[in-house]
Formats: sequence, C-alpha cells, structure tokens
Amino acid sequence: MENYYCGIDIGGTSAKMCLYSAGRDEFVSEWDVPTCKGSDEMIIIDRIIKSLYDTCESEGIQYESISGIGIGIPGPVTDDGVVLKCANLGWDIVELKKIMCEKTVLRNIEVANDANVAALGEQWRGSARDYNSIVMVTLGTGVGGGIIINGKIHTGHKGAAGEIGHITVEPDEEKACGCGCHGCLEQYASATGVVRIAKKEFPEKYSSEEISAKDIFDGAKAGDDSAVTIVRMFSKYLGTALANVAAVMSPEAFVIGGGVANAGVIITEGVKEYYREYSMFALKDTPIELALLGNRAGMYGSVKMVLEP
Amino acid sequence: MENYYCGIDIGGTSAKMCLYSAGRDEFVSEWDVPTCKGSDEMIIIDRIIKSLYDTCESEGIQYESISGIGIGIPGPVTDDGVVLKCANLGWDIVELKKIMCEKTVLRNIEVANDANVAALGEQWRGSARDYNSIVMVTLGTGVGGGIIINGKIHTGHKGAAGEIGHITVEPDEEKACGCGCHGCLEQYASATGVVRIAKKEFPEKYSSEEISAKDIFDGAKAGDDSAVTIVRMFSKYLGTALANVAAVMSPEAFVIGGGVANAGVIITEGVKEYYREYSMFALKDTPIELALLGNRAGMYGSVKMVLEP
Repeated sequence: MENYYCGIDIGGTSAKMCLYSAGRDEFVSEWDVPTCKGSDEMIIIDRIIKSLYDTCESEGIQYESISGIGIGIPGPVTDDGVVLKCANLGWDIVELKKIMCEKTVLRNIEVANDANVAALGEQWRGSARDYNSIVMVTLGTGVGGGIIINGKIHTGHKGAAGEIGHITVEPDEEKACGCGCHGCLEQYASATGVVRIAKKEFPEKYSSEEISAKDIFDGAKAGDDSAVTIVRMFSKYLGTALANVAAVMSPEAFVIGGGVANAGVIITEGVKEYYREYSMFALKDTPIELALLGNRAGMYGSVKMVLEP
Repeated sequence: MENYYCGIDIGGTSAKMCLYSAGRDEFVSEWDVPTCKGSDEMIIIDRIIKSLYDTCESEGIQYESISGIGIGIPGPVTDDGVVLKCANLGWDIVELKKIMCEKTVLRNIEVANDANVAALGEQWRGSARDYNSIVMVTLGTGVGGGIIINGKIHTGHKGAAGEIGHITVEPDEEKACGCGCHGCLEQYASATGVVRIAKKEFPEKYSSEEISAKDIFDGAKAGDDSAVTIVRMFSKYLGTALANVAAVMSPEAFVIGGGVANAGVIITEGVKEYYREYSMFALKDTPIELALLGNRAGMYGSVKMVLEP
C-alpha cells in the first residue's frame, strides 16, 4: 500500500491542505478549507478532518494509507503540539495534536508554528534545500521567523524560538511594537514598518494613505533618492538583526520570504551589505537567499514534519 | 571494572584536568598541566596524555577503565572536533579529536569550544541544573557564550554559534571591536568594556590606568552616581542582548559567569530589568542566574560531553 502524508497550513481565513505521495514524491491533491476567526476550534478541526476523508474518497485513496498529518498554525506551539494562543483564529490554549490524534486515530501527527513550518519547507524543497541548519525570516504584515537545526524545527521553551521580528534593533524607539516592547525589528522591516519609516522620514512625500512597501522598493529600483534612503534603513536594520542571529545560532544559510521579499534581489543585496559589516569573520559568507516556495512553503514543511525516513 | 572519564579544560597557560568516577559520581583527581602559547601542539597533546597516564598510575586506576575524554579549548571547534584556530595557544587548524583518538586508542573523545563546555558544565551541575536548554554568557576579558539545547552543545556552522559577545548592540560605535566589527556587546559588557565605558563617560574621574571593572561595580554598590550610571549602561547593553538571544532561541534559563559576574547580584538585577523591558511577553520570566561553578565549569562540562547514559 502506498504511503500518503497530509500537510495542513492553517491561516486566519482558510487552511491550505495537501496530500503527498511518498512513493511518487509529489502532491497528489491540494485544496482549501475555510477557517474563520471566532469559530469554535472543534468546528474547524472537524471540517478539516472531513475534507481529508472526502479528498481521500474522491482521489480513490484508502484512508488507511495516510501515514501522518503535519499542521502549521499561526501562533506559539509547544513541543507537545499544544497551541498556546492563536490570535488570527481567536483560539486560546488548544491541545491540537492530542485532539487530532484522537479524532483521526493516527499517531504520527505534529503541530508547529506556521513560520517554523515554512522554514522547514524551504529547507526541504526550497531555496535552502542544500543545507541542514537554516534561519528563515518572513517579511509580511509582521516579521516572523523559523529556525531549523539539522533538519528539525527548533521550537524553544514555550514555543517562542525564532521570533526574529522581536529582536530589538532600536532600543530608544518611542513607538511601541504590537508586542509592547520598543524598537523591535518588526517595526522597521515588515510591510507596515517600511511604510512607517517612509512616513516618518519623508512625511510630505509619503503622506498618502495608499502608499505600500512595494511602492518604496519600486521607487528605490527606479533610483528615487528618498526611497533609496528608506531601503537602506530597512537593510541596515534587517542586516544587523541577521548578523545577531548568526552570532547566536551560526546557521548554514538564511532565507528571506514573505510578501515584502517579492521585491526581489534589492532585498538580499541590501541586507547582505550590512550583514557582512556587522558579522564576525567566520560568519560573513553565510548565504542569504530569497525564499522559493511562496505560500506553499507551509504545505511542504507540514508534510516534512511527519515524513518518515 | 569502574568507569572513569577524563575532563580537560585547555587554557593559554595551563590545562585543568580531572578524572571523574561515574560509579561514585565524583572527581577522584584534579590536576594542572602547563600549556604555553607558541609550543607545538603535539608537545602539549603529548604532555596532557602523559599526565593522564601518570595520574592513573598514582591513583591506582587502570588506564583501560577510562571510558572517554572530553576537551574544552578556547577557539572555534567544528562538530567533528577540529579546532579551527586557537589564538591563546597560537594554534592554527588542529584535528584535535582525531589526534587524541589515535594517540589514546580511545573512541569516545569529544572536543568543543571552552565557553560551550562551561555552559554544559553549568547545565549539568551548576546553577542551570534544573534546565535542559540554556544560554550561558561569560563576562571576562572578552564576552563568550555557550548554547545548550536538550543537554547538548549547539556548535553551529563552523563552530561559530554562541558568540554572544559579538552581537551588535551599538551599530554606530566608532571604535572597532577585536573582531573588526563595530558596536559588539564585548565592547561594553566585558571587564575591559566596562572600564572603557567609564573612561569615555567620565574621563576625569576614571583617568587612572589601574581602574578595573570591579572598582566600578564596587562604586555602584556604594552608591557612587557615576558608577551607578556606568552599571546601568552595562545592564542595558547586556539585558537587550539577552532579550535578543531569547527571541532567537527561547532558552529555559540564562546563566551569567566569568570574572565580571563575581560582582554578584548587582549584575543579574540590572540585567533582568532591561531584559524584561526588551523581551516579548512569553519570554519575560526566563530566569537569569549567576554561574555557580567558577573556573571548574569547564571540567564538569568536558566530562559531561563524553559521559555515557
């Protein structure tokens, strides 16, 4: 009997799901299931499991051939698969691994933070596939991160490792970050952070409400002076933060993903310059790559979590 | 036959060595062997091995009952036990594990960076003995660090993990660090760093050549205003750096050791204040403890590296 693995990347509006065939090394099906903030977690869990049953049936796959289910979720998750909080779904503490094991009668189930899972996906099949130990930073509305050591997610105590967005890069910042602290990387290197820098540094030029991080990076590519200045500030904050991560972890490579990274090599070029300036000799040549898998990284990573050797 | 393990903490002037009895859970012998910068590495290695033979003989221990040798050395060491450089001994690349295995005809030999080994010692038998995953920072002439994940040293790529002293805390610092970068933690939180801050901030008061970090901490304890200011600066740099380490790793606890830490709770109190200010909610209560084992931490850690379960 062929072995299949189910990957689930749960988000605030939908869960991206897939079935992966280990024998053929390919995704045989991908589908979405609506989640919805505020729904009872049991309703969402049941809906996800039912959609897996339904897909097995429509694909002619025996449910018994499902060998594992990996789940990524936007919130801190302990090593035991307990979700400590998930603001995007309005969940409090949910013993997701335990509940899934009971409901599916499967034992090979893993749950992890979605940024960690995406990092694992990029390490398995994305731009970091040549490395075993990497750090991925995701630049979206916020800044997330994931740490992979020897092909496994480093969860950390209370599931709080890899919170790259909450590295302090400007201790004297007056405005508070969403986390309550001051001067977190997320305040400068996220999509909203880049716009915030723009409005603060060039208030007249960037007064429009509709300005986006993409506009700033497009402006810098076109040679606009103020946009270039903003991108340099962004690059310095992110480059020094990654140098600090390297001093702690010494990964083999960094991967930068998320919507902001769609700006392309302007991101990695700028970051590399400051990374080299602020990192120790042995660490200066650590590769810094753009992510490859986009919003499918989570599906890859969730499958990899449970894939048996 | 009883099992013994040999721990070796190699320094620039001497190697601290010990024999540990697993059955009795105690050190049965401790001794020093001179090293000397600039000596050929083979001379030092042979001297160390001979002293082990001699100690076995004088203690009435059969050499065959030595089950493993753990070695800490001040320099980056790869996972394979290759010393990449050791400035304190004037060594370049030395395949220390391989050489030791050949010369002693033992297979259970491990080599690691001395700060990492000290961290393992504190995790095994020191102030962090209740935790599995910790970060230790050593405040001496420089600032070193060691990362323990699930009771094992995290070496990182090129053996460069745990270089807490080279986290950038002041990107616009004019003076270069020994590593060539600017604004490393070591420039503020080491013994020399504290004195440097003092001379820079209060040049008239601290003009003497003989001023030491201890004098500053003693002054702060006595309520001297300038000393208090310097200790607050020290605490802010170290506290934010540890908050950044926590955002990356999320250890269960921090341990602060090294000569500067002999100042006592004034160190941990100040650091905790800024650590809490700059760390995320889930990380704020991470314990920050003073090291317990002093310069014997390396011996404990080197034994622990090779101790069989």
